[in-house]
Amino acid sequence: MTDASPTAAVLIIGDEILSGRTQDTNLNTIARFLAALGIDLKEARTVGDETAQIVGALNALRATHDYVFTTGGIGPTHDDITADAVAQAFGVALPEHPDALAILEKRYAPGEFNAARRRMARVPEGGTLIANPVTDAPGFQIGNVFVMAGVPKIMTAMLEDVAPRLRKGVVVHAATIRVSGVGEGTVADILTAAAKADRELSFGSYPFGHGSVGEIGTNLVVRGRDQARLKAAVEALVGELKAAGISASRSSP
Amino acid sequence: MTDASPTAAVLIIGDEILSGRTQDTNLNTIARFLAALGIDLKEARTVGDETAQIVGALNALRATHDYVFTTGGIGPTHDDITADAVAQAFGVALPEHPDALAILEKRYAPGEFNAARRRMARVPEGGTLIANPVTDAPGFQIGNVFVMAGVPKIMTAMLEDVAPRLRKGVVVHAATIRVSGVGEGTVADILTAAAKADRELSFGSYPFGHGSVGEIGTNLVVRGRDQARLKAAVEALVGELKAAGISASRSSP
Repeated sequence: MTDASPTAAVLIIGDEILSGRTQDTNLNTIARFLAALGIDLKEARTVGDETAQIVGALNALRATHDYVFTTGGIGPTHDDITADAVAQAFGVALPEHPDALAILEKRYAPGEFNAARRRMARVPEGGTLIANPVTDAPGFQIGNVFVMAGVPKIMTAMLEDVAPRLRKGVVVHAATIRVSGVGEGTVADILTAAAKADRELSFGSYPFGHGSVGEIGTNLVVRGRDQARLKAAVEALVGELKAAGISASRSSP
Repeated sequence: MTDASPTAAVLIIGDEILSGRTQDTNLNTIARFLAALGIDLKEARTVGDETAQIVGALNALRATHDYVFTTGGIGPTHDDITADAVAQAFGVALPEHPDALAILEKRYAPGEFNAARRRMARVPEGGTLIANPVTDAPGFQIGNVFVMAGVPKIMTAMLEDVAPRLRKGVVVHAATIRVSGVGEGTVADILTAAAKADRELSFGSYPFGHGSVGEIGTNLVVRGRDQARLKAAVEALVGELKAAGISASRSSP
């Protein structure tokens, strides 16, 4: 893989993920979003609603990746402390952003726009808004950090406004070879040889049918930025597998 | 929350999670498993199949938590490098474990137990096995680190053998109050007052019905180790909400 593509990290914020109450899906949504833009997602962290934890993780991630995407903790209640933590991480104040204030004042009827909801207008100094077409209350960008909602529907919608701000990389293409009738241990040597033959590509093996009486096998996933090399490697790998008497066929895309 | 309960971290290992190919479910499974044992899951990290990343994350997590649970990267193929990385993190050798070797030799027919599958018998020096009732190839424990498979069915089964090795804490109980007809901004002040009234409990708000024309509302989740305090706080909170003319009822458990 070329070093020219940007790297990214994700920071999932919320006690509800760590308590097991909620199954996170935002990481997968962001991962697929970044893959389509050719941006390499290198790591993700999940922390609870604790300022010190958020600040520590954010400062570690933003120093080592081109982009950081956070989800969660930007609502109106007392446990929504992400904006405070981000401001602390950057060492800046957290004033009300006039545009955010205007958006929220417009959304709520007089009397409904209380102090709690007004908290959602606070943006770390120097930040710009991220549009929320679902419930209006915006996210924000500061430096290389994009702060988004935790509700998957809102987070996904916010990515639309984030995409144009990102430097794109070269997209990584993937091809899957379905191997059936044998476990991954049977194809491991052939796969290792293929991985050694082209180190610009990545080769993964994802077995299925574990321990059951039904069909067993493994999906071999080859990934790389150069489509010609990818195609050549996949054809060579399928050829090697068939030559060894193993049932293998390219199943996608 | 009392400090007497053990803390834990999870380390998810695998390119397939960061590429978006696979939606992780292991974190949620482990989170619910730990919650039932009264162990506080404090953070999780997801890294790719890169030795330096795994070593760095593992050493950070095992130094700061009572337990670390890893998933992924213990199969027979070249991209399964978790055992190597764990051995490196602990600074120990990675010999074949005689019991693991015996288990694997028994599983595979002569000729099928090749060098690739034999890799799965390697356990960092000082490690003990974690039983795998699904496909036999064991995980292992070394120090406070539990190394498990990435396939959810196998990982879940391995937890059975892990549970008896863990020091239990006091279980955190949770109660949910369903608030309907108003957004979370409307209840934020009442919720904040409740959180301030008992700082041993945690209070979260999880809105639903965002931006849609259907019912809107929020689920208030109160959590704590002392059931009597939890019950009292929930009753007081429901009372406060109703006194403010807000529709609220305890919905679980």
